[in-house]
Amino acid sequence: MMAERLVIIGGVAAGAKAAAKARRMRPDLDIVVYQDETEVSYSACGQPYVLSGVIENRDKIVIRRPQEFASDNIRALTRHRVEAIDVATRQIRVNDLSVNGAQTTAYDKLILATGARPIIPAVDGIELEGVLTLRSISDLDRFKSTIDILKPGKAAIIGAGYIGLELAETFHELNVKTTIIEKFDRILPKFDEEMAQQVSAHLVENNVELITGQGLAGITGENGRVVSVTTESGLERDVDLVVVAIGVRPNTDLAKDGGIAIGETGAIAVDRKMQTRVPGVYAAGDCCETVDRVTGKTTWLPLGDIANLQGRIAGENAAGGDASFPGVLGTAIFKTFDLNVACTGLSETAARQAGYEAVSVNVNRSDRARYYPGGNSLAIKLVADKQGGRLLGAQVIGPGKADKMIDIAATALLGRLTCEDLENADLAYAPPFSPVLSPMITAAGALNSKVGNR
Amino acid sequence: MMAERLVIIGGVAAGAKAAAKARRMRPDLDIVVYQDETEVSYSACGQPYVLSGVIENRDKIVIRRPQEFASDNIRALTRHRVEAIDVATRQIRVNDLSVNGAQTTAYDKLILATGARPIIPAVDGIELEGVLTLRSISDLDRFKSTIDILKPGKAAIIGAGYIGLELAETFHELNVKTTIIEKFDRILPKFDEEMAQQVSAHLVENNVELITGQGLAGITGENGRVVSVTTESGLERDVDLVVVAIGVRPNTDLAKDGGIAIGETGAIAVDRKMQTRVPGVYAAGDCCETVDRVTGKTTWLPLGDIANLQGRIAGENAAGGDASFPGVLGTAIFKTFDLNVACTGLSETAARQAGYEAVSVNVNRSDRARYYPGGNSLAIKLVADKQGGRLLGAQVIGPGKADKMIDIAATALLGRLTCEDLENADLAYAPPFSPVLSPMITAAGALNSKVGNR
Repeated sequence: MMAERLVIIGGVAAGAKAAAKARRMRPDLDIVVYQDETEVSYSACGQPYVLSGVIENRDKIVIRRPQEFASDNIRALTRHRVEAIDVATRQIRVNDLSVNGAQTTAYDKLILATGARPIIPAVDGIELEGVLTLRSISDLDRFKSTIDILKPGKAAIIGAGYIGLELAETFHELNVKTTIIEKFDRILPKFDEEMAQQVSAHLVENNVELITGQGLAGITGENGRVVSVTTESGLERDVDLVVVAIGVRPNTDLAKDGGIAIGETGAIAVDRKMQTRVPGVYAAGDCCETVDRVTGKTTWLPLGDIANLQGRIAGENAAGGDASFPGVLGTAIFKTFDLNVACTGLSETAARQAGYEAVSVNVNRSDRARYYPGGNSLAIKLVADKQGGRLLGAQVIGPGKADKMIDIAATALLGRLTCEDLENADLAYAPPFSPVLSPMITAAGALNSKVGNR
Repeated sequence: MMAERLVIIGGVAAGAKAAAKARRMRPDLDIVVYQDETEVSYSACGQPYVLSGVIENRDKIVIRRPQEFASDNIRALTRHRVEAIDVATRQIRVNDLSVNGAQTTAYDKLILATGARPIIPAVDGIELEGVLTLRSISDLDRFKSTIDILKPGKAAIIGAGYIGLELAETFHELNVKTTIIEKFDRILPKFDEEMAQQVSAHLVENNVELITGQGLAGITGENGRVVSVTTESGLERDVDLVVVAIGVRPNTDLAKDGGIAIGETGAIAVDRKMQTRVPGVYAAGDCCETVDRVTGKTTWLPLGDIANLQGRIAGENAAGGDASFPGVLGTAIFKTFDLNVACTGLSETAARQAGYEAVSVNVNRSDRARYYPGGNSLAIKLVADKQGGRLLGAQVIGPGKADKMIDIAATALLGRLTCEDLENADLAYAPPFSPVLSPMITAAGALNSKVGNR
C-alpha cells in the first residue's frame, strides 16, 4: 500500500512550517513541498537587513535547505512550479523548471502556501533597469546585485508601508538619498494620525524626503536605466533606483483555476481549520484570508508570523489533527531609524469605523525608572470601548521597548481585558527592566478614567 | 467648616501613591503624610544600583521631595513617627522626632502604608559594626558609608532572596569577594529546582561562594567590627561585612495596638477596596495582605510595584472612590550578573501543592531570529493545568528579554488563557525584535501537546 501523500505548494514560511508540523504528527506521511524559487524556507522579513549589512550575507536568512528537509524525510523540490490543480482527481501538474518538463502527480491532502506578490503599477518605465521590488529571495539577489552595479546615490521608494520605511533606513545606512512617494495623504493608515505623524517627522529629521497624497505617475530612463521619477502632480526627482513597495496581493491564480473558492478579501477562503471550501485542500499564509479577532470580520493580513501560525495549523490538520486558528489581532512592528513602531488591534479611527464608541488616551513614558540609566521614551496610545472599557487596540512608537509594550497589549486583547484589568496588572518590575508601574499600566489607568460611569 | 482630612502613615511607595491619587480625585481634601525617615517617596529597589554606582548617587532614587508634595497641597512630614492610632475617636498620636514632641491629631480617613522591615536573626555579633541591612534609605546611607570606611574585601550575604542575589552582583562590581549563606537547601524557592539551579551555577561561575542548607549561627568581631561568620554546621568565613537579607516582615505594630485586624499571613487584613476591618481605615503596600489571583488564596507579597498599585486603590477609595484591587499573580524579576530571572504565577511544585494536575515544559530559545545579530538566550518553563490547559505560571531565566516574556505570561494569566490560546497569539514580529514566533508561543505550543486529550 502506498503511503498517504501530502503535497504542499510553496515552501517559504507557511509551507515550510506546515511540512515540519505534519511530519511531527505523522512519521508515515509522504510529504512533498514544491517551490518555484531556488530556495525554500527563508525569512523575507530579514531582507532589508541583508541589504544594509546588519545581517552579513543572504545565506543567513535561509532557515532550512532541501537537504535539511530531506533529513526529516520531506522532499522539498526547488525550481518546481505547480501549474494546475485538479481537485476532482486530486492531481497537480508540476513543471520542473530545470528541465522544463511538466508531470502530473497525485495527492491525498493538499496545502496551498502560494504566498503573495508585489503590486506593480502600470506606469511607463516600470521595466527599466533599476526598478526593484523586495519580496522573494530572487528579488533580494537582484536588489543586491543592482546596488553593487549601479552604486545608487539617490533612490525613490514608492509606498510608505513597513517595507518602504525599513528600506528608508537601509538606504540611509548605504548613503543613498531617499524620497518616499506615497499615494495616500499620510503614512501608516493603521495608526491614528497623531501617532503616524511622529514617524513622518522622524523620517524628515533623518533627511528622508516624504511626498504624500500623490502616487507614482511614471519613470524615465536613459540607456535602459532609471534616471528619474514623476509623481501624479508632476513633481520630478532624479534617482538611480526605484523600489516599488505599494503593497502585495495574494497568489490565488492556481486556486481560482482549480475551482477553489476565493473569499471577499480576494484571498483564498478558509475556515478555522485552515481548510478551503474543498475538503482535504488547505491554505495557509499570505495566500489566504483570516478573521479579525477584535471585530470578528474577515480580513487579510499577509505577515510572516501569521503565516507560521497558520502553517502549523494547516500541517496539523492535513496530517489528521484537529487544530483551529482563532484569527488575528493585526499586531505589527517595524523599526525605522531610531523608532520602533508597533500596533495591535484597532486604531481609534478603525474602532469608530467598526461602530465602537471609542475612548483613547495618549501618554509618553520612559521604559525604565527615570533614575536608572539607559531608559528610552515611548509614545503610547490605547483605545477602548467606552461601554465596559474593553481594550480595543494599542499603538506604541519610540526608541524604547515598543515590542514589549505591544506584546502586553496583544495578550490583553487576546484575553479581552478591560483597561481596569490592565491598570491592575501584576507585571514584572525591577529597576533594570521597567518603571515601577509599566507604561502600559499607567496608560491603562489614564484610559480607565475615561471609561463609562466612574 | 474644616476640610475632610486624610492621614497617611508612611510615604515611601504605597503612601506616596495614595496621596497623589487622593489629591487627583479630591482637590479639597486635607492630606497629610507622616514619615519617620528623612525622606519620603524613594525607590528601595534602586538601592543595590546606587551602591554599585550604576545609579550615580542616592538622591537620584528619591522620587518626590516634601516640597514637591507641597506643590500638590499635600503635607509630607518627615521625621514624624506615628506612635498610636485610636480608631474609636479617629485620632493618632504623632511624635515629631526633630523636637521629640508628641501631639494628637484627628483624621477622617486613614491609610496605613507602614511597609515592612528586615528580619534580624538573634545571633551573637548581630550588633557589630559591619553588619548591615538594605531596606530603608537610612539603611542605604549607612551601607554606603560603611563600605567607604571599611573598604571590605570579603562579605557574607545572609539569605539568597532577590536582594541578596542583586547584592552579589553589586559586590562583584566593587571587587568584594562574596559568600552567600542560605538556610534552605536551595535558592529561589518560587522557582522549580531545575530553573533555580541555572542561577546557582551562574553565581558560582562568577566566583560567588554559595553555601546552602545552613543558616547563620554567629558573627565574630574584633574591636567592635565584624571579622568572621559561622554557619549552623560550623563553616567559618573571614569577612569584613555581613548583609542580613533573609526576608522582611510587615510593620503591623501600630495596627495591632490600634485594634485593626491582622490576617492569617501576619499582615494587615484588607478587602478588595484595600479597606481594613475598620471602616474608613485603609492599608496598602508591604504592611498588608492580598489575594493570589491564580489560587484564590490570601497571600502576602511585599513588592514595590504591588505597593504602588495598592496605594492607588487605597487613595482613590479613601477619597470617596470605588476602586477594587483584584490581587496579585506573584510576578517578580531581578538581575544577577548576566542573568535576568523572572517568574509569574505558580511553579510546577506550587501548582501541585495547590492541587492542580500540572504539566510543564522547558524550552531554550533565543529572543531574536537566529540570523539577526544581538539575540540572547532564554530558558523558559511554562506550567499548565492538564485539565483544560489553562496556563498557571511561567519562569524565564537568561541573558535575553526575560522581562518581555514574563509580562506576556503575566498578561496571559490575567486573561486566564490556555496554552492553546497563547500558542496562537498574534504577537509582534520583525527581525530586530523577535524570532518569527515568540519564544512564548513556541513554549506554549510544546506545552499544549501535553494537555488533555489532543
